[in-house]
Amino acid sequence: MSDNHPPDSISLGDRVVLYLDSRRTWLVQLKEGVGSFHTHAGIVDLKKIPGLKYGDSIETTLREKIILLRPTILDFIMKSERRTQIVYPKDFAYISARSGLRSGEHVIECGTGSGALTTYFASLVAPSGFVRTFEARDDFFEIAGENIEKAGMTSYTRMEKGNLLNATIEEEFYDLAMLDTGDPWTLLETAHKALKGSGFVFCICPTTNQLENVAFAMEGKFADIECIEIMFRRMEARVGKTRPSTRMIGHTCYLASARKVNSGLKTLNQ
Amino acid sequence: MSDNHPPDSISLGDRVVLYLDSRRTWLVQLKEGVGSFHTHAGIVDLKKIPGLKYGDSIETTLREKIILLRPTILDFIMKSERRTQIVYPKDFAYISARSGLRSGEHVIECGTGSGALTTYFASLVAPSGFVRTFEARDDFFEIAGENIEKAGMTSYTRMEKGNLLNATIEEEFYDLAMLDTGDPWTLLETAHKALKGSGFVFCICPTTNQLENVAFAMEGKFADIECIEIMFRRMEARVGKTRPSTRMIGHTCYLASARKVNSGLKTLNQ
Amino acid sequence: MSDNHPPDSISLGDRVVLYLDSRRTWLVQLKEGVGSFHTHAGIVDLKKIPGLKYGDSIETTLREKIILLRPTILDFIMKSERRTQIVYPKDFAYISARSGLRSGEHVIECGTGSGALTTYFASLVAPSGFVRTFEARDDFFEIAGENIEKAGMTSYTRMEKGNLLNATIEEEFYDLAMLDTGDPWTLLETAHKALKGSGFVFCICPTTNQLENVAFAMEGKFADIECIEIMFRRMEARVGKTRPSTRMIGHTCYLASARKVNSGLKTLNQ
Amino acid sequence: MSDNHPPDSISLGDRVVLYLDSRRTWLVQLKEGVGSFHTHAGIVDLKKIPGLKYGDSIETTLREKIILLRPTILDFIMKSERRTQIVYPKDFAYISARSGLRSGEHVIECGTGSGALTTYFASLVAPSGFVRTFEARDDFFEIAGENIEKAGMTSYTRMEKGNLLNATIEEEFYDLAMLDTGDPWTLLETAHKALKGSGFVFCICPTTNQLENVAFAMEGKFADIECIEIMFRRMEARVGKTRPSTRMIGHTCYLASARKVNSGLKTLNQ
Repeated sequence: MSDNHPPDSISLGDRVVLYLDSRRTWLVQLKEGVGSFHTHAGIVDLKKIPGLKYGDSIETTLREKIILLRPTILDFIMKSERRTQIVYPKDFAYISARSGLRSGEHVIECGTGSGALTTYFASLVAPSGFVRTFEARDDFFEIAGENIEKAGMTSYTRMEKGNLLNATIEEEFYDLAMLDTGDPWTLLETAHKALKGSGFVFCICPTTNQLENVAFAMEGKFADIECIEIMFRRMEARVGKTRPSTRMIGHTCYLASARKVNSGLKTLNQ
Repeated sequence: MSDNHPPDSISLGDRVVLYLDSRRTWLVQLKEGVGSFHTHAGIVDLKKIPGLKYGDSIETTLREKIILLRPTILDFIMKSERRTQIVYPKDFAYISARSGLRSGEHVIECGTGSGALTTYFASLVAPSGFVRTFEARDDFFEIAGENIEKAGMTSYTRMEKGNLLNATIEEEFYDLAMLDTGDPWTLLETAHKALKGSGFVFCICPTTNQLENVAFAMEGKFADIECIEIMFRRMEARVGKTRPSTRMIGHTCYLASARKVNSGLKTLNQ
Repeated sequence: MSDNHPPDSISLGDRVVLYLDSRRTWLVQLKEGVGSFHTHAGIVDLKKIPGLKYGDSIETTLREKIILLRPTILDFIMKSERRTQIVYPKDFAYISARSGLRSGEHVIECGTGSGALTTYFASLVAPSGFVRTFEARDDFFEIAGENIEKAGMTSYTRMEKGNLLNATIEEEFYDLAMLDTGDPWTLLETAHKALKGSGFVFCICPTTNQLENVAFAMEGKFADIECIEIMFRRMEARVGKTRPSTRMIGHTCYLASARKVNSGLKTLNQ
Repeated sequence: MSDNHPPDSISLGDRVVLYLDSRRTWLVQLKEGVGSFHTHAGIVDLKKIPGLKYGDSIETTLREKIILLRPTILDFIMKSERRTQIVYPKDFAYISARSGLRSGEHVIECGTGSGALTTYFASLVAPSGFVRTFEARDDFFEIAGENIEKAGMTSYTRMEKGNLLNATIEEEFYDLAMLDTGDPWTLLETAHKALKGSGFVFCICPTTNQLENVAFAMEGKFADIECIEIMFRRMEARVGKTRPSTRMIGHTCYLASARKVNSGLKTLNQ
């Protein structure tokens, strides 16, 4: 069965994660005329890579082994340029799982930021779906565009400068509304219109105040309201010495989410 | 743009989540001749649902509002029959995010259990990819088959009774190897062969001993080894009274994961 | 050296923890004429206990071993009658450690509740110090009195029915002010007066709103403001099967604390 | 009532915490002839402090306010010189609460380390009790001695160079046995002899392997075995912006504890 499957060989133009160890990895693109990549562990001769397969290793000039890994969408996101607080994999993984986001679906997002969530969602809805995303700040807009481009997700993304609030939005069209702004409650009305019936809205809330405000604002127009926090702890698994890591990220954000009710429950109660 | 999009109306044969409140939800299928669904909040007349849209509401005989939600893949999983400890959304969400699993990819799994992970991965790789899954126990095999069927994922799943260890497996074919057995280290060699270069292996480890054993066994043949635990806490967001929930699941499992290195590092170091 | 130390033998009138296993323990008092204590594991003949030592075992009528443990102050608290949400050992342990509370010191408390904190602090300041505690509700006042009595802490406690706000309080006298009411910020002024310079105030805050309010109210009049949450997880340590417990208390309270500044910082800045 | 209470004024020879803000605090001793203390926020004239009270403030040469706090036992510990991984307040607070350690009791400790636990326990058992502590390493022994001295706890501490295992120990004399070594299970037999019936043994276990080993070794000779982990998270409580801190200590240690059973349960079961 494997013989009619394309070989996993790496070509010029491809991106590769150069993996030395868990703390020293680099995401590079193989380009015509770019021959060497300098690291503290020696120089990597990029010209030797095309023709090799993902999972193969090469040696640096200092005879250190570098493993060639296929970049995942997370590699692109975690290696991207960020000027905003990035949402972590633990968080956007959960958003996609709870919303059940999949190929062909549509996402509306406000607060592109550095494009981390945009990139992730685009990778899930591709090739037939898309993410329409709004960002008011010029600098974020530019950086996000570059990050999304590097991750190869431009075709599945529609970036707009400005605020979702003032835009003309397709109604009852989106499967997921992603609100990552300081005041997501101001956007709930618009998100509600944009969503299909039973579609999900998700809000990134760094503070408990935002969580409280947006959860309250969801009542009536949304059902299945869920407010959560996800904590992520690394383990050091070594023979006879297994333990949690000493350092840990204590908090990224709370997540508030809910599903659209077609008409507010209050009016339905007549 | 929304007019060339299929209407979200519900038809006979569809499955619907009947949502009363966050603790009282039911997943039902609308079938010819099945008219009423009994709850403590009154009887739901299922015959009135076809023609309505997801997100609409109906009333029970006791005049309680029931909201009609479109079942997500998580709804199917969390409402499925379980005889094994289920892996939680926080966990399988992270597996899919880290591995970057997407439409068209292939997963090999050992330990189908109740089919929760199988169902979730099948939903991500559909329609062109598939999950090949092994389960040794008769009772789990049968329940998993029913759960996968209910979730509509049978076409993207290849179930086999038995152990991955004794099976003939496509080599360098799979993007993700999912090991959910008590002794995942015994399967690493097989998983390694089955994976494409740089492909991910993930192991579900309820205990620290399993985590330690499997992380040690990964060394050399896999890179980017990561051992983690994800904790999930609900928040009660109420105006003026926001707080974490009193009750919490303290632990489901640790996750060990890594990416395939084509030949063991030790041999490469010669 | 041990021979001039009193023998640890148990006498009539003493309290004993009957320990069958970690989930089945009972705190009993040995009284004249009370002969038997019934458990699901058989009857314990209490008359056989006097003369035995703490740490000894006896058998029930069903030949189950019962170990005789000396009650600690935590045993008294955790076995006491509660009508309020009890503060957990993880929390009051931290309060005593951070404040450095010790024998001879004085505590002022508002919100006796079931007397858990009162009992614990009294045990630390005994025999020369005391806890002065206020409780407005009749039912709590009565239960707390009984609980404190059972724990043998009545002599080190001064209970008053009512609110700290309306009481005449010794000024610059207390080492620790413990506020366990719904609106601790209303009591900060009084607590400030009652405290010695550099003395600690501690507030139990179940919600983030209380934490935010009280931390803000502390500014200027208190220094070294600290807001924290302590999480406690049981581990199941079994050979080859070690793991965190599945069930866990997700949240009891946040703790806000600070040390008294003699005059507000703002006025000092002139 | 407050007038017959000694004034809280600071004298030459006293130690003071100079508090600028939560991250900039210094523990100093007021000595004859030591006049100035240099900080980035200006010079503090220590000669002005005697006669002031704890809780008062003084200004630096740069007109920054410094608050004078009375050092607690935690201030001494957290400001002490450390060459070993220190146990955190969350942990030793819990040890003292669960064991109910109080004035007049006796502690036996193996693994003095930097003396953090020794100092804390000495402060609780003073003035009539003591902590007898063993440390095999010369460098730790010396540092611990200095740290305990600075905290004023030398009178309540009996330091010995060497290992508890080879020492002659008072039998049935101690209320708490504190084991903070890499292999606490080797010391359980000795700790058992040293403890009073029903007395507590506590073991600091950074790894899950240690926890598993020591919990297994406790069985039979100890009851009420408890294995736990305590997590500590700071909150940033600001008006309208309350949230957990981004950075957090992910792990310090697990704690295993139990109470002495006078004769092993296994033999009692005959």
